[in-house]
Amino acid sequence: MQVSILDSTIDPLHTISMCARTCYNSREKYTKEKQEDFIRGLIKSGHTSPLENAIITFDIIGISRSCLAQLTRHRVCSFCVQSQRYVNQEKAPYVIPKSIKKNMNTLTIYENAIMDAKNAYKELISLGIPKEDARFVLPESTTTNLTLTTNIRELRHILELRTAKTSQWEIRELTNKMAQLVIDKGWGVLVEDIVNEAR
Amino acid sequence: MQVSILDSTIDPLHTISMCARTCYNSREKYTKEKQEDFIRGLIKSGHTSPLENAIITFDIIGISRSCLAQLTRHRVCSFCVQSQRYVNQEKAPYVIPKSIKKNMNTLTIYENAIMDAKNAYKELISLGIPKEDARFVLPESTTTNLTLTTNIRELRHILELRTAKTSQWEIRELTNKMAQLVIDKGWGVLVEDIVNEAR
Amino acid sequence: MQVSILDSTIDPLHTISMCARTCYNSREKYTKEKQEDFIRGLIKSGHTSPLENAIITFDIIGISRSCLAQLTRHRVCSFCVQSQRYVNQEKAPYVIPKSIKKNMNTLTIYENAIMDAKNAYKELISLGIPKEDARFVLPESTTTNLTLTTNIRELRHILELRTAKTSQWEIRELTNKMAQLVIDKGWGVLVEDIVNEAR
Amino acid sequence: MQVSILDSTIDPLHTISMCARTCYNSREKYTKEKQEDFIRGLIKSGHTSPLENAIITFDIIGISRSCLAQLTRHRVCSFCVQSQRYVNQEKAPYVIPKSIKKNMNTLTIYENAIMDAKNAYKELISLGIPKEDARFVLPESTTTNLTLTTNIRELRHILELRTAKTSQWEIRELTNKMAQLVIDKGWGVLVEDIVNEAR
Repeated sequence: MQVSILDSTIDPLHTISMCARTCYNSREKYTKEKQEDFIRGLIKSGHTSPLENAIITFDIIGISRSCLAQLTRHRVCSFCVQSQRYVNQEKAPYVIPKSIKKNMNTLTIYENAIMDAKNAYKELISLGIPKEDARFVLPESTTTNLTLTTNIRELRHILELRTAKTSQWEIRELTNKMAQLVIDKGWGVLVEDIVNEAR
Repeated sequence: MQVSILDSTIDPLHTISMCARTCYNSREKYTKEKQEDFIRGLIKSGHTSPLENAIITFDIIGISRSCLAQLTRHRVCSFCVQSQRYVNQEKAPYVIPKSIKKNMNTLTIYENAIMDAKNAYKELISLGIPKEDARFVLPESTTTNLTLTTNIRELRHILELRTAKTSQWEIRELTNKMAQLVIDKGWGVLVEDIVNEAR
Repeated sequence: MQVSILDSTIDPLHTISMCARTCYNSREKYTKEKQEDFIRGLIKSGHTSPLENAIITFDIIGISRSCLAQLTRHRVCSFCVQSQRYVNQEKAPYVIPKSIKKNMNTLTIYENAIMDAKNAYKELISLGIPKEDARFVLPESTTTNLTLTTNIRELRHILELRTAKTSQWEIRELTNKMAQLVIDKGWGVLVEDIVNEAR
Repeated sequence: MQVSILDSTIDPLHTISMCARTCYNSREKYTKEKQEDFIRGLIKSGHTSPLENAIITFDIIGISRSCLAQLTRHRVCSFCVQSQRYVNQEKAPYVIPKSIKKNMNTLTIYENAIMDAKNAYKELISLGIPKEDARFVLPESTTTNLTLTTNIRELRHILELRTAKTSQWEIRELTNKMAQLVIDKGWGVLVEDIVNEAR
């Protein structure tokens, strides 16, 4: 799994501050030094709607179709997903859960099943079956690529649900990477409370 | 695939008429006789926002995970989907595309691949692998059950896209059934123009 | 202000239960007796997405344009609002805040201001100014009528924010009436925790 | 009315291209020279969902409360609006429609009505009435400031509806300015077909 930021609002912390200060007509009080504390105050008080004004587009490579199914249930997002109707899946990688990897017996069963499915896919394609029909034999572990655009308010909601310890391991890994990318950009104030909670 | 209406707005045509007439303060002009023509007029003129005030919940049994992936991309819907993390999938049926069914050779390849995958799933479960990890070997043809609630404006959008001839066969079948259920209820005026276009 | 239920999902408690039980494949466990406790359990555990499958349309008569401005900020709702471009506003009633009503002096200032504005509106109309331009002199206290359709999950969100003691008095009155209508229908389990909190 | 761009996606045309090309696994075909034609192709074919991945935040100063009411009906937007509960409105400017301005008689009626309302507001405030109650006497022509964040797909939808010749003059002026700002940024390909249609 590889996750990166493809694009974003140019200056999220400034933009959020300016938008929030529109409500109270207090833009002249803005300083760059105070912006992080100001945003922490918005989050603490539950006034999180200004966070919708900062947006990030993530480039996501190599998550399973199972993980995709969970991810696309979030509705305040824009997705572009690699099509299995139009893109040949013969060389698509697949994920392997840790619980299966740690035992040679289960790993063999798993990898054989994946190989059998991939071979069936190839055979069906070679016999003239359209990609959109052949893909029905592909396992859910088959990976896909996508872009995900969302605003920081919704991102926080996704992180709260999906980085939680009760969440499924793959989407947990994905959302932790997303949070880390936000932190690496210098925008940690936007997600730090959730990330600290989840760790 | 089985589709039925689980619940709905009690009287969609009346409710849409009343809501639309709120805008122009013209409720006193309402008669039951005129309501179908009135709604046809709204649709023709593109004033479709009043259609949001009628809602239907569909009960959907036995669509593939592939079809689910397409369906849940529609964001103005509410979905409740059978969980593969919590529900054992050993006996889950699977779909077979017509392109594969019509040839004994491709059908054999297909069914063998499905059986191999199901056996791997069972073995992994019996070896103590959690359901949420074993399901990674399941094919996309594995079926699921769900409920879908949406309003008529969004339903029309879904029907326009998904009953089109270029659309994928399974979701076409599903959305045609949904349209037919609306018609059978006596609410055909809400979808007739789209259905006629698609046929 | 008059609020009533124009239409709704036929059987909200049953529908929510059935939808929620789809996730866990546990519909056979449903009984009418258990449905309220089951829904209380969903709400307590934060699994509130099944509440989206029950929908209510409210008929709202006589709220101020100020209140409307607050209400239409909720985005998971469908609104049909009386048009000031097309409907003559000469006889539109207006709201009077308690803080103004309780003092003869402020009440006189207020009512004179409203009358002056209404007279200006009438004069402009009589001089051939279009309704959509004359209405710029109308005060925010001018009332309007609308329909509001939303699902129970969003309704709960609206009630949480707008029945709170820090909320503005008119929208508090409106949302308390909405909650009471839900309770009167026998669906109190859907909102009781919020209403009790707010009182 | 003053409109400017407060922030945006860094490189909308590139980002839209990359997101769209994810679906077909065709990123290697991207060139900067082809990106405009590629986007024109997406728009022409109706495949406009990739346009959701480019986002703009507008800073809007001095539109009437009437215009605000129309604008906030668009639900795929994020708004931060100056509060009339917390911000004193004594010096708030007001709009004057052309139909009223062009005749001395109607202009006098209009301006007197606005002045009477503003004086009543000031008096009520000086008598201790809270801002949130005094504002009920303010006319709809009173202006406000806000920020609006939306994606290009939704912006196109807003422009289609609101730049149309049948649309109300103030929101037409606003949305034409918004379109011009997009063009001035060099992103004209995103809105040119709608703007040309409206002129």
